[in-house]
Order: sequence, then structure tokens, then C-alpha cells
Amino acid sequence: MSSEPERPPPAPEAGVPAATLSNKQRKRDARKAEKAAKYAQQQKPAAEDPSPEHGQQKQQQPAAAEDDPSAANYGDVLPGEILPAAVPDGPWAEIGRLDKAAAGRSVLVRAWAQAVYRGSKTKNVAFIELRRGMSTVQCVLAGSAQMMLFALSLPKESIVVVEGAVALLDNPLRYTTVREVEIQVRKLYCISRAAPKLPISVEDAGRSAEEFAKAEAKGVPLPCVGQDTRLDYRVIDLRTAAGQAVFRVQHQVENKFREYLSSKDFISIHTPKLISGSSEGGAAVFKLEYKNGKCACLAQSPQLHKQMAICGGFCRVFEVGSVFRAEDSNTHRHLCEFVGLDAEMEIMRHYFEVCDIVDGLFVELFRHLNENCKTELEAINRQYPFEPVKYLESTLRLSYEEGIQMLKEAGTEIEPMADLNTEAEKKLGQLVREKYDTDFFILYRYPLAARPFYTMPCYDNPAYSNSFDVFLRGEEIISGAQRIHEPELLAKRAAEHGIDKSSIKWYIESFRYGTPPHGGFGAGLERVVMLFCGLNNIRKASCFPRDPQRLSP
Amino acid sequence: MSSEPERPPPAPEAGVPAATLSNKQRKRDARKAEKAAKYAQQQKPAAEDPSPEHGQQKQQQPAAAEDDPSAANYGDVLPGEILPAAVPDGPWAEIGRLDKAAAGRSVLVRAWAQAVYRGSKTKNVAFIELRRGMSTVQCVLAGSAQMMLFALSLPKESIVVVEGAVALLDNPLRYTTVREVEIQVRKLYCISRAAPKLPISVEDAGRSAEEFAKAEAKGVPLPCVGQDTRLDYRVIDLRTAAGQAVFRVQHQVENKFREYLSSKDFISIHTPKLISGSSEGGAAVFKLEYKNGKCACLAQSPQLHKQMAICGGFCRVFEVGSVFRAEDSNTHRHLCEFVGLDAEMEIMRHYFEVCDIVDGLFVELFRHLNENCKTELEAINRQYPFEPVKYLESTLRLSYEEGIQMLKEAGTEIEPMADLNTEAEKKLGQLVREKYDTDFFILYRYPLAARPFYTMPCYDNPAYSNSFDVFLRGEEIISGAQRIHEPELLAKRAAEHGIDKSSIKWYIESFRYGTPPHGGFGAGLERVVMLFCGLNNIRKASCFPRDPQRLSP
Repeated sequence: MSSEPERPPPAPEAGVPAATLSNKQRKRDARKAEKAAKYAQQQKPAAEDPSPEHGQQKQQQPAAAEDDPSAANYGDVLPGEILPAAVPDGPWAEIGRLDKAAAGRSVLVRAWAQAVYRGSKTKNVAFIELRRGMSTVQCVLAGSAQMMLFALSLPKESIVVVEGAVALLDNPLRYTTVREVEIQVRKLYCISRAAPKLPISVEDAGRSAEEFAKAEAKGVPLPCVGQDTRLDYRVIDLRTAAGQAVFRVQHQVENKFREYLSSKDFISIHTPKLISGSSEGGAAVFKLEYKNGKCACLAQSPQLHKQMAICGGFCRVFEVGSVFRAEDSNTHRHLCEFVGLDAEMEIMRHYFEVCDIVDGLFVELFRHLNENCKTELEAINRQYPFEPVKYLESTLRLSYEEGIQMLKEAGTEIEPMADLNTEAEKKLGQLVREKYDTDFFILYRYPLAARPFYTMPCYDNPAYSNSFDVFLRGEEIISGAQRIHEPELLAKRAAEHGIDKSSIKWYIESFRYGTPPHGGFGAGLERVVMLFCGLNNIRKASCFPRDPQRLSP
Repeated sequence: MSSEPERPPPAPEAGVPAATLSNKQRKRDARKAEKAAKYAQQQKPAAEDPSPEHGQQKQQQPAAAEDDPSAANYGDVLPGEILPAAVPDGPWAEIGRLDKAAAGRSVLVRAWAQAVYRGSKTKNVAFIELRRGMSTVQCVLAGSAQMMLFALSLPKESIVVVEGAVALLDNPLRYTTVREVEIQVRKLYCISRAAPKLPISVEDAGRSAEEFAKAEAKGVPLPCVGQDTRLDYRVIDLRTAAGQAVFRVQHQVENKFREYLSSKDFISIHTPKLISGSSEGGAAVFKLEYKNGKCACLAQSPQLHKQMAICGGFCRVFEVGSVFRAEDSNTHRHLCEFVGLDAEMEIMRHYFEVCDIVDGLFVELFRHLNENCKTELEAINRQYPFEPVKYLESTLRLSYEEGIQMLKEAGTEIEPMADLNTEAEKKLGQLVREKYDTDFFILYRYPLAARPFYTMPCYDNPAYSNSFDVFLRGEEIISGAQRIHEPELLAKRAAEHGIDKSSIKWYIESFRYGTPPHGGFGAGLERVVMLFCGLNNIRKASCFPRDPQRLSP
């Protein structure tokens, strides 16, 4: 069969003129959509009678007239069916694993039909591009006229089952991830018919800025799917290669976080998100009516309870869980709800023990991602180009004063006893990169005034604190510190921060029963993924993000 | 040194008359507490001046007068210190690892001093029982009179650092987990002094029903810590061996859940807990004001979004995350907030594929816990005796109709098309155990009326559904089903359940863009732990539980 991709519209890659992406194609799409709608109408069952249960299915209804030699080999699934009875009970092939070695084999696949079109040279064949996860494969169909019509009527993004033979290609394909082989379709069933017109297309949502710029330069701009539209139709947006890849990376980040800390004798805990006081103080807290007239806050972090777990005798704990911030931050890096990666541990001598864990964990994490997520990082890189993170085997530690000094020397105006603003952080990241060749470093001994009330002051100078932030690509990614474990000092500090002591009495009292010195850190899962992958917006690293404007889907 | 435990009060174990736990001991405790309070008062620093930072500490202040030969070997930590400078920079020993092989070695430990008392035979020694995690060790001290006074003044549950030599004992101890050796104290520092009088004692909180019954029978009842009091002082309650063990088991449950599903190509996702409609319908939903006047619900499950992740092209996903139920259920097995273990997956032929995953996962989980949590399960068993779970290598599957039939034959009155009530579940569990010798089984094909709106009806009889519940020890532990992936049917079913379609439009619309048939299941982490360990109350399996009455600590 054809080894020459005939795919319309060709993506504007090097050598393929973007001009071919004309309005003609858009019109053709529209016509096809109409046809498909008509066809779907004809296929509707007469009545919604109860049909046989799965496993006891009737013989598959031929989809077309009796003079169709392919009649038994295609059609829509019956209502209530998961799979037509005519499909063999063979094992399912994973598209991503189809290669030369599979040539000649008969395979069964279920996937999204991301593109269906008639051959431009060989008119009596239809091409179907199947996608499953991050893998795509070309299928080619040469059935009866009716079967061809059936195939060509399939709306993009319908779920189909294909049975066929794997055939070696003379020339590798350019548009699919499976490049050496294609599937020659024998049977084709539609399992779930997509709407004839989708609100956004996976293809459009998956384009890189470079593709847009090239097309724009040639005067044939491509439809651009804005960030908000993507999120409105997130279930389609997530189907892009980069969308799929980001969450596979996220899965690995979480796995590694858990695995590393477990190997260091941390245990996983879960603390309540409904609490009777605010965890971090300030106004950025969601409140709600609990039972029996009580008022509850949504935890802004697991801070209070993870410390209480230390009071409860767990020497080292971590938590992966939801965190809620009612902040009005409409930035590229804030969400109203995110996943906190938190750890808390006894400190035996010095709070640098917490830095040591952060250091070991993240260096190991970076290595792991670079080694084990190559395909995913490439997919992200194709749509959102980024440079790999530069990091040192032993993470650089600078004191806050050293950081301020570097900024001053570079001419940045800075308030030495306040927190760094976003610009100063960015600048410091740049200076550190130039001087130390790393995108990842720890800045410790922050001014006390810039930290939450539970942070341990430095005893040699209580204007500073036993605390640190960690930066990746010039943005804060982790915050950590030694905590106050002495209840009187804790109560005093809470009061100084304007926190009503009575609202967190249960927390302060916990330190009266013998408490080991302890500290910990917190990071945001989405921010770790965003910064590691160099994404420009944290929303891309959240499955269904929540920000001040967005509460759905 | 002494190999004979002289510990007062002896726990009422076999052979030790419970009568020895007299009021004398209570009075002695009270006197000791007073003494300790006085001592602590004397030790308070004159002023709260800034002191040197850790690592640059001053020479440790002798805790007593200059005529004390042990003066340099004990004392309270200075304000701001994590560890006195006089403590050697040796490695920290893990109490749990001290055994015969360690005899003769010098060790450094930091732990809770759970008991301190003067030798009853040898008056010039003090015994200190140290606890760290689930391990306890006896320390014996024979210092100057002042050092003895210092030691004996330590309130129970203070954090201390001990440096000393490991010594082999002639007879194994009965009250500590380290039985073959003790530590002969050379240095003793108090790192965090507990309040002289604790609201509950770890010892009381750690007693079994059997101990209480025995003491009661002998007319010397022991102080009983009720479930509510335990939870009020959860940070102390968690320090009991069973308390520690439960959450180590929980850690393993979560790890195995993730590991097993990851090995079956599931990826971990995180879905929003703040949503614009209710996930399960009904009134049991917490509502709050979101940003910009919007009203949000706290997700009652990740149901809607985990299905949308399948729409988003992730073939198999799981989530470990918070779940909120505003139910007024004051039972032993309901919480207002718990940790959901959820999975969702494409179904290729039949919803039993979901049962297969549940089957494989839980059989593997049970095996793993029995093999890897022996110490923890023993600790739980000591306080809360239970029989190990009986399960089959291939999990029993019964249809709902078969289950009803068994109940009918046993004379239980039952409404065949409604859900099973708690009693019927318990009874069925008992019948199944008698007939099939298993505590764990799957009941499938539930009446549709008993299931949520998104459950796929059976096509051969829409009064039933492609759904299942899983039972452990006669209680529901997992719920699962095939989901409706056809938007019109889904909208119809939502309406039939009285759910305002517009509130979940974003969910229903997700199925219009090509959706694979899919299904999944959900379990509660706390309930899995509770039922596996045969605990009588789910609150014991939640670090800081939330129920209609409880929003703190």
C-alpha cells in the first residue's frame, strides 16, 4: 500500500508550503462534517428498546445495503455495546509499540480517529490517522464504496476500532509517531461518534509558536487557540501530544517525590483540608459553613497539621494534597487550587538538614525526568521549546545577604529586609546562572519579616530567620524553614501577625506535650512541572485549573 | 547494670497484679509533676536576649552547682539551640535497631522520655524509657545527685538526647520493644520540656480492652481515654504504638495502590476539589462563595473530572485526593472529609475489566500488608485484637441477584430492587464467609435505582446496571461501574435524578467529542485501613478526622 503520506492538510513543516493550508481545506472539512451528520442520522436506531447485554450481542447489523461485499466489516456499534460481536477476541495492540518487527502481523486497535481523508493520488483508498495517548499511526482502507463512505463520514475525534494487518512502508511517514509501518484496515467500527463540528481541533491546539509565525509570515495565518479557549475545551486540549506529555511528567514528579522521601524514612500522611482556623493567616482564605453552624476554612497549606504530625510522633512525614488560595492573583504562576508537595521532619542539629533533603530530592528528580521522560520532554519541546534545566550535583546555597549583595552590585534597587519581588527573583536567577552555571539554587536566612508567623527566628539576629526559598529558572519553587516549636514564642509570633490565637489554639497547644525541633518545606506540583518544562503558564500544568476567573470545567 | 525492669507502674500484664496500679502511683505522679514544674521555673533564662545561632553555640551551661561532678553531662537546651554543644557529633542511632550486636557501642539517641522513675531496688539509679516511632528502649542513669534530680524532674513526654553505652541484659525486658539491651546514660539533655501535667497519657491511650477488663474485674479500674478525648488530644494519642502503626499501614496502602496501578499503565492525576456543580448530586455537599460572586461546591468525589480525564485522552488514570461529604452521618464508618482512592479506565469489552483491576490490586495489597507490615499489624492487634482478613487468590464475584437469593434463603427480609442496608451487608458478609471462606468479595449488577446517575444501565434489563460494590468484613469498601459515555443518555439520567443539567454542562458536553467506553471505581483510604485492621471506628484511621461534630484539631 501507499508509503507516501497524502495527508491533508499537511502541517506546515519545513519544505511543505504553509500556503497549502488554504480555505479550501476548511470548506472541505465543513462539507465532510455535514455529510457525517446526515450519515449519523440514518444510523440512529428506530427505537430505544433494551438491547442484549455485552457478551450476548446479536450478530452485527450490516451498516449498508446487501450488495456491499464489505458489509460485515464496518459499522457503528449498537446502543449498549462496547464492541461489536464481529470483532475478534484478539489482544489489543498498543499503537506506540508498532514497529518494523510487527510487520505482517494482524492487529486490533481502539483509538481516536484524528484525521480521515481520501487519498489524493489514489482516490479509491481512505487514510485514517489513529491516536492513542501520545502515539499516532496511519491506517489505510481500500474497501467497498459503502465502506469508504462510512470511513470518510467519520467525524474527527470519533473512537474507532480497527482490525488489520501491519505493513512495512518504503519511506518513513512524517506526520505520525509510528513511522515505519501502517495498518491495512480489514474491519472498521465506530464506537463513539464525535460531534461533526468540534469547538477546537486537536491539530490547532497542538501547534507551536514557530508554526504560527511561519504561516503568518507567509500570509496564511493558522487558527490560533487561545489559552482560555483551550481551558474551556480542556478535554480536547489535553489530547495534544504536549498536553498528554505534561501530565505524564507530572505523574513522574509525584512518583519520584514519594519514592525519594519514602527511601529517607518519611511516611505519607493526609491532613484535613477543612480546618477551623486559617493555616497561613491573611485574607486569601476560602471560608464556608460547616456543620452545626461552625465556620470552616479551606487549608491554605498542610502546614499546621503536618507539624502536628511531628508532635504526634512521626519523625518524618510528607503529604501530596490539595491546597486552596483565595488570592486575586491573575498571573502566569498562581492558581486558586493546586497540589502541594509538602514535607516535615525532625531537625537534629541544624535546619540545613531540611535543605539537604530538598537538595537530594530535586537533583534526583531532575536526573530521573531527563532519563525517563525523554519522549514526553521532546513532545513538550516541539510545541513549547525550552532549554533543559541546568543544575549542579550539589545544589548551590547562598545566604539572603549574599543574594542581596549580588543584586546590588548588578545595580538592582532592593529593600534589604523585605521579600524579593518577582523582578528581583528573576534578576537574581539570571546573575546566579551567569556566575554559577545553574538554574537551581537555595537562598537561605531570609528576613523574619518576610516569612510566616511559625518560622523560627535566628537566635544570633532575630531580624533574620532559619528559612530558605529555592529557585528554578528565576522563580520561587520551594519554601522551607525551621518552625517554632516553643508554644509561648509561637503564640507571640501569631499575635504579631494579627492572627487570632483562639482560632488556632488546637495548633499552639500541640507544642506543650514535648515537641522535637523540626522543619520542612513545601512546593507546588504544578509549579515544579511548569518550571522544569519551561512552560509559560501554570494552567498548562494543571488538568482542570482554578483561578479567580475560572471554576469550570 | 540492672537487668530487672523496675518500672512503675507495671502494666497489668499476666502475672503482674493490676492492684499495684494504685492511687499511690497517681499521687506520686502528681508530686513529680510539681517538682518538675519548680525545676523548670528555676531553669528559665533571665532574659530573652538573642543567643548564638546553632553551630556557633557557647559552652553548655552547667545545669547545677560547681560541686557537681556530672555538671557538664546534663541540662536543658539553651533557647534557640537545637542541640547542646557538649553533645558529640556522632551519628544518631535508631532505637528500633538496637540489639545484642550493638552491645558495647556508644550511641546517641533523641526521643520522647515516656517514663522516668527512680529504681525501686537500687535507689541511686534512675530509669528512663525512651520512645521513638514504634520503638522503646530502657536507659539507666547513675550520675550525681543533681543529675539524678534533673532526670527525675523531667516531665513525661519531654524530648531528650541521651548519649551512652549499649549494655547487654541478663534477662530480656518486658516493657520495651528493645528487650536485650539497655543504654547506660553518660549524658542527658532535655530538648523540649513537656507540660508537667498532660491532658491524657500515652500509656492510658495505648491500653487494650482486655487490660481494662482485667483491671475492672479486680476492682482497680484504669483511666479510660474515650474516643472523643483521644481526638481532642490527637497529637498525644498518635504516639501510642497502635496509633503509629495505623498510619504506617496507611502509607503502605497508598504506596501499593499507586505502584500497582502505575504498573498497569495508569497515570496519577489531580482533579479540582472546587467545582461549579455537585459531583454526586444530593444535599450532602459543602458550598462556598468562590471569586467574583460565583458559588462553588467541594467535590464529593473526583468522579466527573476523572471521567473527563478519560475524555482527555488518558486511557487509565488514578487519583489519591481529598473528598468532602456534608452528610450528617454520625456512624463508625463515615467522615465529612476523607481520602479517595479513585481509578478510571477505558473498557474494551466488558466492565468486568474494572473488576479485574480491583481484584488484582486488592489481592496484591492484602499480601503486601501481611508480609511487610508484620510489626505494625502486631502493634495494632495488641491494642485492638483482630483476625487477619480471609481472601481468595481470585476474588469471588456474585451477582446482586445471587446475593439477594442467599439473604432470602437465610430468612433476611429484603427489598430486591433497592440498595442493601448496613445490616443486610453485614449478614451477606457472614453468609459469604461461611459458604466461600472469604471476607472479601465483589457483588455486581446492582439495581440501577441504587446507583448514581452516571452509571451505565444494563442493556438487557435497564432496571439493573453495569456496576459493582466490593465488601470487606461485611462492609462496603469499594464502589465501581461502567459509566454512561453517551451525552444524551447522561443528560436524561441526570434529569431523572433531579440534577440541574446546567450545573454540570461542562461535564456532559465533554462526551460529545468522541469518548471511549469507560468505567472505574473508588475506595476510601481510611476505610480500607479500618477494615483491613478490623478497627471499630474510622476515626482511628484518620490522622485528624472530620465529622459533623468535629472540625478540630
